[in-house]
Amino acid sequence: MQLTVVKIGGNIIDDKDKLSAFLLAFSQLEGARILVHGGGRIATDMGLKLGIESNYVNGRRITDKETLSLVTMVYGGLINKTIVAELQSVGCNAIGLTGADGNILPALKRPVRDVDYGFVGDVTSNGVNTTVLSTLLQSGLTPVLAPLTHDGHGSMLNTNADTIAREVARALAAIFEVQLIYCFEKKGVLSDPTDDDSVIRRITAADFKELTEKQIVSGGMIPKLENALAAVSDGVNKVIIGHADDLLAIRSGEAGTCIL
Amino acid sequence: MQLTVVKIGGNIIDDKDKLSAFLLAFSQLEGARILVHGGGRIATDMGLKLGIESNYVNGRRITDKETLSLVTMVYGGLINKTIVAELQSVGCNAIGLTGADGNILPALKRPVRDVDYGFVGDVTSNGVNTTVLSTLLQSGLTPVLAPLTHDGHGSMLNTNADTIAREVARALAAIFEVQLIYCFEKKGVLSDPTDDDSVIRRITAADFKELTEKQIVSGGMIPKLENALAAVSDGVNKVIIGHADDLLAIRSGEAGTCIL
Repeated sequence: MQLTVVKIGGNIIDDKDKLSAFLLAFSQLEGARILVHGGGRIATDMGLKLGIESNYVNGRRITDKETLSLVTMVYGGLINKTIVAELQSVGCNAIGLTGADGNILPALKRPVRDVDYGFVGDVTSNGVNTTVLSTLLQSGLTPVLAPLTHDGHGSMLNTNADTIAREVARALAAIFEVQLIYCFEKKGVLSDPTDDDSVIRRITAADFKELTEKQIVSGGMIPKLENALAAVSDGVNKVIIGHADDLLAIRSGEAGTCIL
Repeated sequence: MQLTVVKIGGNIIDDKDKLSAFLLAFSQLEGARILVHGGGRIATDMGLKLGIESNYVNGRRITDKETLSLVTMVYGGLINKTIVAELQSVGCNAIGLTGADGNILPALKRPVRDVDYGFVGDVTSNGVNTTVLSTLLQSGLTPVLAPLTHDGHGSMLNTNADTIAREVARALAAIFEVQLIYCFEKKGVLSDPTDDDSVIRRITAADFKELTEKQIVSGGMIPKLENALAAVSDGVNKVIIGHADDLLAIRSGEAGTCIL
C-alpha cells in the first residue's frame, strides 16, 4: 500500500488562500496520506497578545511552561482543527492528532546540556506507534499531525515538524511504500540560488557530496538533505523537496528535487 | 460490549488536583469508555487576555468568529490535550478529538430565529459517526471529545458538551450496552436542596412527573432529567447523575441518581 507523508510549514499556514489551495490538492492525492504541519506566525502573534515572551538561544525557541500552553493551544487546537475542518469540506476524512493522541508519538524531553530548551521532545522512529497509525490509515482516515509530542508522564512537548515527518515516514516504511514530501518556499534544491527555476531534479548520496564540495548546496539546505538521505537509507522510497503550490506535480514526479 | 460515556464540566477542569484524581478514576473504569469535556473558566480568562469580549443573550454565550477561534484553541487544544496527556500517563490510551476529526460529529449551524447564536452547532444522534467511533473503541482507544463540532463546509462550531454526551450515547446504544454518566458538583438529584446527602437514588419517568409536580425538582435540573429520560427511552441502558469525586462508585451503582 502506498503512503504519502507531506510536511508543510508556517509560510503556507499563515496564508489562508494558499492553505486552501494546498489542502484541495492534498485531498486529491491518491492512496493513504499523512499531513504534518508546523507552527507559523500565528503562535508568535498570539503569544504577544497574551504577554508570553519568545526566548531564543542560538536561533532556537525555548519552550517554557507558558510557551508550551501557547503552542498546545495554537498548534494542537487552532491550526490543527482549521486544517481538519477544511480537509473535511473537500471530502478528505482527516483526523487531527498530537503525539499524545493514541500515544502515537511518545518522546523524550530533551536532556539539558549546554542549553535547557525546556519542554521540547525528541522522537525516534522506534518510538512511533505504527499500530495506531496503521489502524487509522487502514480505516480510510487521514492523520493530520501537529508538531507536538508527549513524555508519557502527563506533559505535552514541543517538537520540530520536519523531524516528526521524517520519523513517521521511516517507521511506516516497514509497512507501506512511503513517499515523503517536504513543502517549502522554493521549487526544490536550486543549482543557482538566484534562479528559482534552476531546480536540480535528482540528488543521490554521491551527488550530495559533490554539491556540498562545490558549495552549490549550503546553509540550511545541508541538514535538510542529510535528513532526506538518512530517511531514504532507512527504507523511505523517495523524499521530494518542492514548493507547496506544486504538490500534485511533485507527487507524480514532475516537480521538486527527488532524493534517492 | 459495555461502553461508559462520561461527561465532565468546567468545575473539574478548572481544578488541577480534582482533575487528576478524576482522570485516575476514569482510567480505572472497565470496558470501553468515552470522555466528553466542557469548557471552563480558562476560556473566559484567555478571552479576557486576548481582548475577546464574551457576549451573552438570555444567558447563552454568542459564538462570534473570534470566540470560535478562542474555543477551538482552548477546548480543542489546551484542555483536550492536557486531559489526553494525563490519561496517557496513567495507562489509558486516550485520543483527543473534536467533531471534525474523523467527521465524528457533523452538525448544523443553528438557524437564526430570534437570536443569532453565531458559530454554534446542533448535533443529533443520527449524525454521529458510529463507524469511526466504534473503530477507535474496538482498537482499544479511548476517545476524549471536546465540545466542538463542524459544519462540513470548513467551519468548526461550538457545541454544548451535555448534548454531545447524550447524542453520542444514544447513537452508540445501537452497538454497545451504554451507561451515560453526567458528573456535576452535587452527589445527585437531591430531595432536599439544603442537604447534600439527600440523594434520590432512582428516578423513573413516573417519579419525574411526581417530583416536578411537588417542586422537589426544579430549575436547571428539569432539562437535565428530561434529557436523561429521553436518552433512556432511546436505548441508553442507564443515565446516572452524580459527583465527579464518586466516579467509580457511580459506575458500580453505589452513588449518584440513576435515571431508568
